[in-house]
Amino acid sequence: MENFNYYAPTQVIFGRRTEEQTGELVRAQGCQRVLVHYGSGSVKKSGLLDRIFRSLDEAGVSYICLGGVVPNPRLSLVYEGINLCKREGVDFILAVGGGSVIDSAKAIGYGVTNEGDVWDFYEKKRQASGCLPVGVVLTISAAGSEMSDSSVITNENRCLKRGYSSNYARARFAVMNPELTMTLPKYQTASGCVDIMMHTMERYFNQCENMELTDGISEHLIRTVMKNARILMDEPDNYEARAEVMWAGSISHNGLTGCGTDGGDWACHQLEHELGGMFDVAHGAGLAAVWGSWARYVMDARPERFAGFAVNVMGVEAGKNEMETAIKGVEAMEAFYKALEMPVCIRDLGIDPAEKELRELAEKCSHFRRRTVGCVKKLDVNDIYQIYKNALTYEENGDQKDPHRPEKV
Amino acid sequence: MENFNYYAPTQVIFGRRTEEQTGELVRAQGCQRVLVHYGSGSVKKSGLLDRIFRSLDEAGVSYICLGGVVPNPRLSLVYEGINLCKREGVDFILAVGGGSVIDSAKAIGYGVTNEGDVWDFYEKKRQASGCLPVGVVLTISAAGSEMSDSSVITNENRCLKRGYSSNYARARFAVMNPELTMTLPKYQTASGCVDIMMHTMERYFNQCENMELTDGISEHLIRTVMKNARILMDEPDNYEARAEVMWAGSISHNGLTGCGTDGGDWACHQLEHELGGMFDVAHGAGLAAVWGSWARYVMDARPERFAGFAVNVMGVEAGKNEMETAIKGVEAMEAFYKALEMPVCIRDLGIDPAEKELRELAEKCSHFRRRTVGCVKKLDVNDIYQIYKNALTYEENGDQKDPHRPEKV
Repeated sequence: MENFNYYAPTQVIFGRRTEEQTGELVRAQGCQRVLVHYGSGSVKKSGLLDRIFRSLDEAGVSYICLGGVVPNPRLSLVYEGINLCKREGVDFILAVGGGSVIDSAKAIGYGVTNEGDVWDFYEKKRQASGCLPVGVVLTISAAGSEMSDSSVITNENRCLKRGYSSNYARARFAVMNPELTMTLPKYQTASGCVDIMMHTMERYFNQCENMELTDGISEHLIRTVMKNARILMDEPDNYEARAEVMWAGSISHNGLTGCGTDGGDWACHQLEHELGGMFDVAHGAGLAAVWGSWARYVMDARPERFAGFAVNVMGVEAGKNEMETAIKGVEAMEAFYKALEMPVCIRDLGIDPAEKELRELAEKCSHFRRRTVGCVKKLDVNDIYQIYKNALTYEENGDQKDPHRPEKV
Repeated sequence: MENFNYYAPTQVIFGRRTEEQTGELVRAQGCQRVLVHYGSGSVKKSGLLDRIFRSLDEAGVSYICLGGVVPNPRLSLVYEGINLCKREGVDFILAVGGGSVIDSAKAIGYGVTNEGDVWDFYEKKRQASGCLPVGVVLTISAAGSEMSDSSVITNENRCLKRGYSSNYARARFAVMNPELTMTLPKYQTASGCVDIMMHTMERYFNQCENMELTDGISEHLIRTVMKNARILMDEPDNYEARAEVMWAGSISHNGLTGCGTDGGDWACHQLEHELGGMFDVAHGAGLAAVWGSWARYVMDARPERFAGFAVNVMGVEAGKNEMETAIKGVEAMEAFYKALEMPVCIRDLGIDPAEKELRELAEKCSHFRRRTVGCVKKLDVNDIYQIYKNALTYEENGDQKDPHRPEKV
């Protein structure tokens, strides 16, 4: 077991009609001027934004607005938000939306508090020394950004999607009403569920001795999301299922499922970030598209871990040997993705990267050969290329190209 | 599923040698003068206190000391601490010890920050409006006070043990090195494990629809503590087992295992508090002594929940009906307590309350007939008396007195 730090200070207010408490929660932060940050028209159309404004008005909170956040949130809007906040003396940001809105709010918060170009942090050129406080009214269960330390922003001019994490950006509070997620389209619900599962799976597949307590929590969390994701495909307004998924989304990425580990692998997130940066795909769907290829490529480095996952999470009967069991587990997960109408390969995303683009994705993902990604296996530019390549199409028997012969890039 | 709030802002620093970071952690709090609060000689003898002093010295932190906290921590020492802190201008309390030391530190913190008698809070006469910040170096896995909002103090002059909870008293940080718990005697280790399990069991046995995610986490947590408690009976210096138990202790009482519930029953804690106030028994042992009697008395109000517990936690095969399965589960838990050399009845605690004392316990526990305790069944003074009475001795066949005929008190 590894030493670990755990810090998840976000105050969670969970359940029906909790958004009505937003004004009081913001006022309790002792701030003078609030930026209400949101995305597309859906929070307007649903009337949520009006309810939030009313709650802020009743609490006597002064605020301004900035909407327009898109999935894979853009750096240009972050810059606009930073300028707006500085001009208006904003000292608190209320994010009303999902992970994109929250991440955009965090990025604006960094930009207001720190001198210089906020993109520097996402490029890992320097560290932030603070962040404006952020509060959240969550409308999408997926990214876990409402309790996590992370923020992912897309530099649309350079087609780069990059993350930056620090405890400064932990939300002060998160209002979570599962009812607000009931109108999400099926695809977005499914994509969110995959993202939630992956936040725990990225930590679960690691290269260390593990903590029994953490493993069991992780396995139960993934099983619970799977069960309730299936329910939501038929019953999008099932409150209990929405609630299970929503809370799972938060604790899957607040650090709990990484306690006692080395932090996890995270290669799939890095692989997806490049896809998202170049092709603007839904994050969870992108993760589903590359996961099987990644798993097959690295599993021989920790067959016992993949076999345990197959048995404890996927309900697979243990096979002749660990590798066989491990592969059955991956196939079972792919069958689950299909049941959710999620992709199991890159072409399922509706994109078809050319050879040149696959090589470019690999170059970018390896930060132009300056880093490896993952820890189950440390993947260099050649490995990354091969995983993308194997992920391009899916062959039904699961017997994709020989994973152990990476081509040279 | 119920609406819930979750707030566990304590920064956890977990693992080997983490106590060496104490000075830096205290300094980061920006305080001027620290009270180092501790218990008996064991932290001195082990050299831990010296290591803490060195760490504080190296960080340039100014501090004074107050030792002498005992199990079931006393109000008189709390008063002494309050006076000392006021005199010395203390603005941060560092608790080095287990639940008793932490709870005493929280009580001192309330007393320094609020006017009037601090005992008022524990008597529920008024609410605190703040608390000095508290940090923790944990040496006993049990109470969970390092992440919880609660503090339990004994008014030794009135033989009353009372708790007070507020978010003001959440520790700023908790340093948790499982190695520090390796020298605990077997009895204290076992008692701590029971306490940890009970913090989740008190929440698990409730009177509401539950959350699947929470239930599975709870069940896994209890199983994990049971497994590792058994290991520690033979291998007290098993690091992994100490670590599993230590982390379980924190998340068992930080609110996580209550999410989506009505808050839980807590009758056993109330029953034990009176025993602890009158007879000064070890808290976990006191809980084990009354649990079986409580469970048999209330289980017919939620047989399906007790049956589920029996199957999912205790590994019991489902019987003919829910009540039968439920009883098997209680018996299995009692067998586990015995394996840990824990009591399964009050006389096992080495005390033998007379009839008059049983009635006095019941009167006190019901706050002199002004309240009921528990929610699986709401227990009045007569029910409470009967549970104590049934708990007095243990009959091997588990077929204790008819639980459904409470005597009038």
